[in-house]
Amino acid sequence: MFTLKSLSLKTLPKLVITHGLNACFHTGARVCGAKVAVVLSGCGVFDGTEIHEASAILVHLSRGGAEVQMFAPDVAQMHVIDHQKGQPAEESRNVLTESARIARGNIADLAKLSASSHDAIIFPGGFGAAKNLSTFAVDGSDFMVNEDVERVLKDFHKAGKPIGLCCISPVLAAKLLPGVEVTVGHEEEQGGRWPYAGTAQAIKALGAKHCVKDPHEAHVDHKNKVVTSPAYMCETKLHLIFDGIGAMVTNVLKLSGK
Amino acid sequence: MFTLKSLSLKTLPKLVITHGLNACFHTGARVCGAKVAVVLSGCGVFDGTEIHEASAILVHLSRGGAEVQMFAPDVAQMHVIDHQKGQPAEESRNVLTESARIARGNIADLAKLSASSHDAIIFPGGFGAAKNLSTFAVDGSDFMVNEDVERVLKDFHKAGKPIGLCCISPVLAAKLLPGVEVTVGHEEEQGGRWPYAGTAQAIKALGAKHCVKDPHEAHVDHKNKVVTSPAYMCETKLHLIFDGIGAMVTNVLKLSGK
Repeated sequence: MFTLKSLSLKTLPKLVITHGLNACFHTGARVCGAKVAVVLSGCGVFDGTEIHEASAILVHLSRGGAEVQMFAPDVAQMHVIDHQKGQPAEESRNVLTESARIARGNIADLAKLSASSHDAIIFPGGFGAAKNLSTFAVDGSDFMVNEDVERVLKDFHKAGKPIGLCCISPVLAAKLLPGVEVTVGHEEEQGGRWPYAGTAQAIKALGAKHCVKDPHEAHVDHKNKVVTSPAYMCETKLHLIFDGIGAMVTNVLKLSGK
Repeated sequence: MFTLKSLSLKTLPKLVITHGLNACFHTGARVCGAKVAVVLSGCGVFDGTEIHEASAILVHLSRGGAEVQMFAPDVAQMHVIDHQKGQPAEESRNVLTESARIARGNIADLAKLSASSHDAIIFPGGFGAAKNLSTFAVDGSDFMVNEDVERVLKDFHKAGKPIGLCCISPVLAAKLLPGVEVTVGHEEEQGGRWPYAGTAQAIKALGAKHCVKDPHEAHVDHKNKVVTSPAYMCETKLHLIFDGIGAMVTNVLKLSGK
């Protein structure tokens, strides 16, 4: 009779290695269509990637028949937030290591990502995009962008390959792609429904065009092949965010021509 | 002009507290239907909750109009797995604290969960269910269950309130609810497609009935009001797992009568 009884602390990692790390998203299934890179920034909304945005992106890419590879920069997180207490914790974590939790171990260093190997790139949101992929959370519109993030965004854009971003991540495109059109949702807080609404002003200050959208929608900049959706910039129901991300992914795949 | 420029390491936590912790899943939206408790076991497939299973559960509950509250035991994780390396790391983490990453901070100690306050309960999978909610990963079918997990599962069952479980979590029901019918997918490994197929034998050894199901399906034990879906017991496409979890959630909500 099979049990997991024989497993000890020593054998468990072996199980993880032999089974767990093979648990990528598309084994044993038809692989077709676009090759899409997804760039993570940690694991958890307040110091990393917003988990539900990343998961929604992966569900929609899976349904669209895309082949997914995940990447994250091999750098220290700006800080670690205790998500229960809403306060920084006295510890340090690595962005790539924590992102691997979302990727089920199947992830590579962002330094290894080349636009030539992929048909599209997508950035979920979460504070990680504004803390670990850039300094937007600290520096506002004068922010710096991680050099590999800058390289891949510019390379995909130069190659005419579509770029998807949601939540706070569109600030990265606004900074690096002159005159780009993006959405981060609405431009007024509306009593707390859009708590980060002022981000739209920062986007305009960067010389980009901001387009107002609701959470279930995406905005397509056809000229730049940049697709954006508000996601958790809005305090709303998760399934509406899921649908807006679906619209973003569908348009990214369409623009990839695959 | 709004920027986040004035934010410092000291003011960021305030932003998190004032905006982030209010970012529960259903603010600003119609709340109706069943009150559902979701029990997490950490954050990451190899030492906690499987992230995409939890997210799929929350998307489907949101679409179903449910009011969600998340819970996790306030205990140390069995260990921490570096998900990139597939090996234990030399650190310790708390199950409730890490689960809060999936819950966006909106989570409570499982000790506070009462069946009387909710219409249904759902357990996503991930190794956390077999390491932190129970000792199944170490002890096989002779495993122990966390006392609060045991209390709430028995209380919801006694009250005739539906219980949803996916992936490895159905072993909890198999242990605690005599003669229950559950699925963990298929009973043969099929060349690695079902790497944990032997779990079905452990379920039978516990006196429960195992029902073979595919990833996009759920099994409903109408007598016990227990609904299960294989999820990541199968190496398959994420959108099929998402759909199977959708079938589980839909049946849980239906059985709740709300």
